[in-house]
Amino acid sequence: MGFSEIEYAVADRVATVTLKRPERLNAFTLTMRGELIEAFDLADADDEVRAVVVTGAGRGFCAGADLSGGGGTFGHKEPGELVDGAPRDGGGTVALRIARSLKPVIGAINGPAVGVGVTMTLPMDVRLAAESAKFGFVFARRGIVTEAASSWFLPRIVGIAQAMEWAATGRVFPAAEALEGRLVSRVYPDGELLPAAYALAREIADNTSAVSVAAIRRLMWSGLSAASPWEAHAADSRLMAELGGAPDTAEGVTAFLEKRQAEFPMKVSTDLPPGVPLWPENPYRV
Amino acid sequence: MGFSEIEYAVADRVATVTLKRPERLNAFTLTMRGELIEAFDLADADDEVRAVVVTGAGRGFCAGADLSGGGGTFGHKEPGELVDGAPRDGGGTVALRIARSLKPVIGAINGPAVGVGVTMTLPMDVRLAAESAKFGFVFARRGIVTEAASSWFLPRIVGIAQAMEWAATGRVFPAAEALEGRLVSRVYPDGELLPAAYALAREIADNTSAVSVAAIRRLMWSGLSAASPWEAHAADSRLMAELGGAPDTAEGVTAFLEKRQAEFPMKVSTDLPPGVPLWPENPYRV
Amino acid sequence: MGFSEIEYAVADRVATVTLKRPERLNAFTLTMRGELIEAFDLADADDEVRAVVVTGAGRGFCAGADLSGGGGTFGHKEPGELVDGAPRDGGGTVALRIARSLKPVIGAINGPAVGVGVTMTLPMDVRLAAESAKFGFVFARRGIVTEAASSWFLPRIVGIAQAMEWAATGRVFPAAEALEGRLVSRVYPDGELLPAAYALAREIADNTSAVSVAAIRRLMWSGLSAASPWEAHAADSRLMAELGGAPDTAEGVTAFLEKRQAEFPMKVSTDLPPGVPLWPENPYRV
Repeated sequence: MGFSEIEYAVADRVATVTLKRPERLNAFTLTMRGELIEAFDLADADDEVRAVVVTGAGRGFCAGADLSGGGGTFGHKEPGELVDGAPRDGGGTVALRIARSLKPVIGAINGPAVGVGVTMTLPMDVRLAAESAKFGFVFARRGIVTEAASSWFLPRIVGIAQAMEWAATGRVFPAAEALEGRLVSRVYPDGELLPAAYALAREIADNTSAVSVAAIRRLMWSGLSAASPWEAHAADSRLMAELGGAPDTAEGVTAFLEKRQAEFPMKVSTDLPPGVPLWPENPYRV
Repeated sequence: MGFSEIEYAVADRVATVTLKRPERLNAFTLTMRGELIEAFDLADADDEVRAVVVTGAGRGFCAGADLSGGGGTFGHKEPGELVDGAPRDGGGTVALRIARSLKPVIGAINGPAVGVGVTMTLPMDVRLAAESAKFGFVFARRGIVTEAASSWFLPRIVGIAQAMEWAATGRVFPAAEALEGRLVSRVYPDGELLPAAYALAREIADNTSAVSVAAIRRLMWSGLSAASPWEAHAADSRLMAELGGAPDTAEGVTAFLEKRQAEFPMKVSTDLPPGVPLWPENPYRV
Repeated sequence: MGFSEIEYAVADRVATVTLKRPERLNAFTLTMRGELIEAFDLADADDEVRAVVVTGAGRGFCAGADLSGGGGTFGHKEPGELVDGAPRDGGGTVALRIARSLKPVIGAINGPAVGVGVTMTLPMDVRLAAESAKFGFVFARRGIVTEAASSWFLPRIVGIAQAMEWAATGRVFPAAEALEGRLVSRVYPDGELLPAAYALAREIADNTSAVSVAAIRRLMWSGLSAASPWEAHAADSRLMAELGGAPDTAEGVTAFLEKRQAEFPMKVSTDLPPGVPLWPENPYRV
C-alpha cells in the first residue's frame, strides 16, 4: 500500500492496522497520522472488510507523540485546515476519522499506550488489552492538554471521576487499573490478545449484516452526541422504513425462521440506506 | 381493562404490567404496542399507583418482534404519524412513552428479552433480572438496526464500548453478562425476582412523596438530555420555589424532625408543580 | 479568613476546606453556602494551591440542609438573583461554583453525606469515602426534589438506573453501596481517608503543570456537556497551538527526555491560555 509507518492487511474479512515503528515503541508522527486516516478510508471502501483490528508492532502499542524534536515538539505548527485560526490537532483528526468508521474497530492494545497512543483508541468500539499493556494520559506532565477530542470521549467511556483522576495526575497505570476503571473491556495474557480480538471480529463477520452493523455503528455514536432520544427515534424510524423491505432484512428473518446461518447480500459500498447518520457532520470538512 | 396481549393490575400501590402472549414468548405486536402505551397512561392517571413493575407471563419476558409474518415482517408499514416521511418505529413509541412516565418503572426480566424485548426496557428506571433471563440486541442478525431509540439510551446506560459489542455482534447473552455490563442492576434466583421488584416498589411507595418522585423522575431523565447543568439548575430552582411551601414539603420535614413516617397529602393527578419538565417536549406530538 | 461555618487552610500546596458545624453534623446553611463559594474563589486565585480537599469536621461530612427552621425550611425564599423568576437554588450555586474550579477537587467524605451534603460533592473530580460514611439522596422523603443540578451530574456519574434507584427511594446507604454504584472511587478505613486524599492531591502537585491541569479540568467538564466531539476538537486545537511553544510545554518535554522531575514555570493566575473553556458560560452571571 506504500505505507511506511503502519501496516495494513486484510485477511479472513478483517483488516489489521499495525502501528509500525517498533524501534520507537510506535511513537506517533505526522506521517503515521496521515497513514492511519488513509487506512480507515481503505477499510470503509472494501466490502471484504467486516471489522478493523488496530495493534502495535513489537512490544509497544504507541508511546505517544514522537518527542525526538525535543522541547519544541508541540510548537511545530503543522500546516493544513484551520480551526478557529489554529492548526487542527493531529490526534483529533485521527480520532474523528475512526469515530466515523463504517466498520467496527477493535483496539488490541499489546503494550504501552500513552498520550495520543491511548487517546486515539477512545473512538474505537472495543478496547482489549494484554497483561503487559500500560496506559497514561500524561499530557499534564508535558505541559499540554488532553487532545484527540478525548475530553469528549473519555468521560463518556470511563466517567468523569475516573477521567479526571487519570488526566489530572498524568499517572501511568497497568492493565488491571484500566480494566477496573472500564477503559478496556477485557485483559488477556499477552499471547491471547490478538486471538481474542480476531474472535470478536469474526463473531461480527460470521453472524451479521454488514449494512446493519455500519448503520448501527453510526446510530450509536450519533446517539451518544444526540441532544435527545427523539433524534434517535427519528433516525430509527427512517432506517427501519428503508431497511424493512430490503434484501438483508428478508434474508435475516427468513434464515432465523429456518434456523440456518444467514447469507446477507447487501454491500456497504453500494447499499447503505440514505438514513444512516453522517456522524457527526464535520463542520471543518475532514 | 379490555387488554388482549398484556395484563394490567394494581395492588398494594403498585401497577403490574404483564406481557401476555406466553405461547409466543410474549413476542411484540402492534396490538401489544398500543396496549403498553395505554397501560402507562392508566398508571400515570391513577394516584393509587406509586410504581410500575413490568414482567412477562410464562417463561419469557419478550422474544422481540413477532416474526410470524416471515421475511416481510419489517416491510409491513404501520399507519400513523410520520417522522421525516417515515412511519414511526413502533418500539420507539413505547420506549418514549415509558421514558416520560410519572411513576418509577421497574423491569422484572424473568426470561429471554431479545430485540425490542430488551430495548423497551431501557427507559425503565431499574432493570432486575432472573437467573434464567437472556438478552440479545440481535438486530444486526436480522438485517435491521437497533430501534426504540436504543442508540440514545443504551450507550448512556452501559457505555458505548459495551453497547457496540452487544449491538455489532448481535450476541445472545446470559444474565451474568448483563450484570457485569451493567445492563441490569441485580440478578436473582428465578423465584425471588418478583418479590425483589415489589420490595423495591414498596420502598418507594412507603417512604416518599409521589409528587417528589414524579418531579425527580422527569428531572433526572431530562437532566440526562440537558445540554448543560445550568438547565438543571434553572429547573431545580423553579421546583424548589414551587415546592418550598407546599404541603408535602412541610409534612416531609416535620415527620423527619418528629422521627415518624410521613403521610404526604399531595397527588400527582392534581398537584404536580408547573415546573416539572415535560420530558422532552415531543416534537411529533405523541 | 473570617469564616464562621467552614475552615480554609493551605498547606503543602493543597487547600483544605472543612465544613465546620460539627454539633449539627455540618448541616448546610446560607452562611455555609456563601463561605464555600468564597473558599473556591480563594483557591482559584492562589497559585500555591494545586488541589482542593473538601471534608467535614467531627463525625459527619454534611447532614444536608439545616432543618432547625422546621416544616417551613424550604419555604424561606432567599433573596438574590432570579432564575425564571425564582430564587436560585442554594445548593446549585455551590455545585456550579465547584464545577468551574480551576483546581482539581477531591471530596474526602468522612461521615454522613445526605441531601445537599452529597449533591454538593458531585461536581468534585474524585470522591473518596471513609468506611463510616453514609449517603442519601433523601429529597423525595422530604417532599422536595433532587437539587444542586444533581439531575445533570448524578446520572452522568453513576448512570441513570443507579441515580433513579437512589433518588426514587430516598434510601440512606453505606459506603460499600456507594462504591459498588460508582458514586465514590475508593473506600478507606476511617483513619486512612485524609492521608489518601492528600496523597492523591500531591500526586497531582508533584508531577504536573498547574496550567495544564486547570485547562484539562475545564476541557473535561466542558466535554461532558459538549454537543459533539467536534467542539472538543476545536478547543483542543486552539489550546495545543497556544501551549505548543509555551514554557511549561518546553520544560515538560525536556524534563521527560532528561528523565528528571519537571519544574513548571507558568502560573494559573497569569498564564492561563485564552482558549481554556469558560465552563459553561453562566447564563445567570454567577
